Amino acid sequence: MNFTVELKIMPLKELLDPQGKAVKGGLDNLGLNTVQDVRIGKHILLQIEAANAEEAERIANEAATKLLANPVMEEFSIFIK
Amino acid sequence: MNFTVELKIMPLKELLDPQGKAVKGGLDNLGLNTVQDVRIGKHILLQIEAANAEEAERIANEAATKLLANPVMEEFSIFIK
Repeated sequence: MNFTVELKIMPLKELLDPQGKAVKGGLDNLGLNTVQDVRIGKHILLQIEAANAEEAERIANEAATKLLANPVMEEFSIFIK
Repeated sequence: MNFTVELKIMPLKELLDPQGKAVKGGLDNLGLNTVQDVRIGKHILLQIEAANAEEAERIANEAATKLLANPVMEEFSIFIK
């Protein structure tokens, strides 16, 4: 079966997010100053061929751990669709 | 009230996603060849001060349209949490 797996990778809450801070400044300049905080991460869609949802999640977890997320700076969450 | 708004920005389906293709190659090299397709976009969390959810969504839509998403190459979706 083919599973669509959604992976959200975000900077850890404890860390500064310089990209988010820059975007916050840009939004302020556009007059959108009711936006109080911005954090920017990655949104990745994987098409995974697997026997069941558990196997698809295991593969997505391995992909995130080995290649896609940097555990020093990022946390990730996996959603099977 | 303070709303957490989630913004997903993905490359349009009709377009090639070179970053996704590169990651697909990396996963193949790691032996994760059951991953058949990878598409990479942005996941942005906004903290928005607004009177209600509709206003928060309107502000997020304006932020995405004016600054965060490139309509030529990307589509976005908004989720109020």
